[in-house]
Amino acid sequence: MITRADVESAATRTAGHIRSTPVAQVEPDLVAPAGELWLKLEFLQHSGSFKARGAFNRILAATETGELPAEGVIAASGGNAAVAVAYAAKTLGVPAEVYVPTTTPAVKIAKLRQLGATVLRHGSEYAEAYEAATKRAIETGALFCHAYDQPEICAGQGTLALELLDQIGELDTVLLAVGGGGLMAGVAAALDGVVRVVGVEPETAPALHAALAAGRPVDVEVSGIAADSLGARRVGTIAYDVAVRTGVRSLLVTDEQVVDARRLLWDRYRVAVEHGTAAAVAALTSGAYRPASGERLAVLLCGANTDPADLVG
Amino acid sequence: MITRADVESAATRTAGHIRSTPVAQVEPDLVAPAGELWLKLEFLQHSGSFKARGAFNRILAATETGELPAEGVIAASGGNAAVAVAYAAKTLGVPAEVYVPTTTPAVKIAKLRQLGATVLRHGSEYAEAYEAATKRAIETGALFCHAYDQPEICAGQGTLALELLDQIGELDTVLLAVGGGGLMAGVAAALDGVVRVVGVEPETAPALHAALAAGRPVDVEVSGIAADSLGARRVGTIAYDVAVRTGVRSLLVTDEQVVDARRLLWDRYRVAVEHGTAAAVAALTSGAYRPASGERLAVLLCGANTDPADLVG
Ligand SMILES: Cc1ncc(COP(=O)(O)O)c(C=O)c1O
Ligand SMILES: Cc1ncc(COP(=O)(O)O)c(C=O)c1O
Repeated sequence: MITRADVESAATRTAGHIRSTPVAQVEPDLVAPAGELWLKLEFLQHSGSFKARGAFNRILAATETGELPAEGVIAASGGNAAVAVAYAAKTLGVPAEVYVPTTTPAVKIAKLRQLGATVLRHGSEYAEAYEAATKRAIETGALFCHAYDQPEICAGQGTLALELLDQIGELDTVLLAVGGGGLMAGVAAALDGVVRVVGVEPETAPALHAALAAGRPVDVEVSGIAADSLGARRVGTIAYDVAVRTGVRSLLVTDEQVVDARRLLWDRYRVAVEHGTAAAVAALTSGAYRPASGERLAVLLCGANTDPADLVG
Repeated sequence: MITRADVESAATRTAGHIRSTPVAQVEPDLVAPAGELWLKLEFLQHSGSFKARGAFNRILAATETGELPAEGVIAASGGNAAVAVAYAAKTLGVPAEVYVPTTTPAVKIAKLRQLGATVLRHGSEYAEAYEAATKRAIETGALFCHAYDQPEICAGQGTLALELLDQIGELDTVLLAVGGGGLMAGVAAALDGVVRVVGVEPETAPALHAALAAGRPVDVEVSGIAADSLGARRVGTIAYDVAVRTGVRSLLVTDEQVVDARRLLWDRYRVAVEHGTAAAVAALTSGAYRPASGERLAVLLCGANTDPADLVG
């Protein structure tokens, strides 16, 4: 379980290491009858997504308590979480090992190596790379950095919400994309009792939706356009607890709605985000989320590790 | 000649029609020994560039004085200025005619038509389309909207600088790209005596640089990577006057430096801008502009009407 106090500690700890990302107020006609619409431009964050917040918090917290070994840190996945851990480790002068499945594209491996990480390819699926990474962490004593289910990771992501409160005086609702739920957990803990948090998932990656229906985290099939960022097979236990405690729902959108929303973000605002990020916007543009009259909404544009080649033409 | 008072009137007039675009503070290590670096995210503006500010101001000013005829507005060019005029005209319910050279790509024509403009192809060069447009404006009585050399256009662009002053308390220098100089004129008029304004041009489109050297606006050869937005053959008379009065310089950058700067904006900040916009950043990354120790800098990211296909890989 994490609370607002954990997020506040994370904000103090990571200050100076993460970028404070701006918000843009745009016309609410997109989401009529809502009264105000804000975009949080978190894709400007170091490493191209909010994941840098959690990564810095995890590593800095371990440094504070003397738990960061000389062996450094270990992560699994070829996605944004691993890039963020590699980036934070490099900035802080800490060695990093990253386990990726053998299916990981060469460009992603090159990116991680460029950030100074040692990349190890293991297994044909994420689950196998993950298992190898946790085993290796036990062997070497290195600090394992989970993609979403550790308190410091979740609390770090939540710092984005404290920033948002500073930037926008009055806010009713925040919409955000959910994968393993680390972002949602941090944000919902930070905003509990103050602002409503709504999770959005593709129908093809419904881990939180299925967990809330089942009454506990359960495995789901994942596929589809946003699987690289939102394709956790099971929502984290921290995320599940926070969602239940604070009343976070999960709305589902189709892959096609995600593709349309990503395109709309480019056409209307010249912002190029990844599909996982566009899911949150898709809840508005598809009507999956229907705002009340005058409602003040913010949508998190949380990552842009994308190839923008298909946005024009 | 335009002054800060003209820009302030423009801000009042256009309020509610243009977006207030946010600024992002980023690490100044890019421009050491500068103390602070801010990016003004003007590419979020309606129509994808600051040109919407001038277009709205021109049309609204004519409406106020009763000079806007039923025939509406006329513009020349297939670039950002024409898109902005078409956008503003559509929003305000005013008919728009746009003259473009026959060399204009089909996608640009489609974009203008989508915005409800009547597109007329005339001549093989911009100068011919321009001439036809001004002739037609005299015939029909429609309001001609120049791309950069009209007081209302320049004053409209300058509203961006008033916003910037509101957003950043203390600022030493603003860097911006110069084509025909409308943006520079508005910004320098607004910031005169308060913040230094530095213009940047590609070596391949040096209209302001040549004018300052010659002591008057002169024709230059234009070519190169940013010619579509910065390729005015002669700087405007308003721009020239403001530059001389307020002491604006023009720094030159190479096309290669522009390409590198555009790429760096994507790699570091996940921002996809057009080449013309990247020129301003290139002055910093190439060393053409050398900040003083502790200097507080803002760079205008003024447009993103670009195909981002080449940013990844
Ligand atoms: C851009 C982006 N958005 C959203 C998410 C989902 O975050 P979480 O797994 O914490 O739910 C991710 C995870 O990688 C991401 O990269
Ligand atoms: C993105 C962008 N930046 C800069 C300029 C230059 O503006 P000006 O012609 O007012 O100097 C333009 C002009 O089209 C532009 O589109």
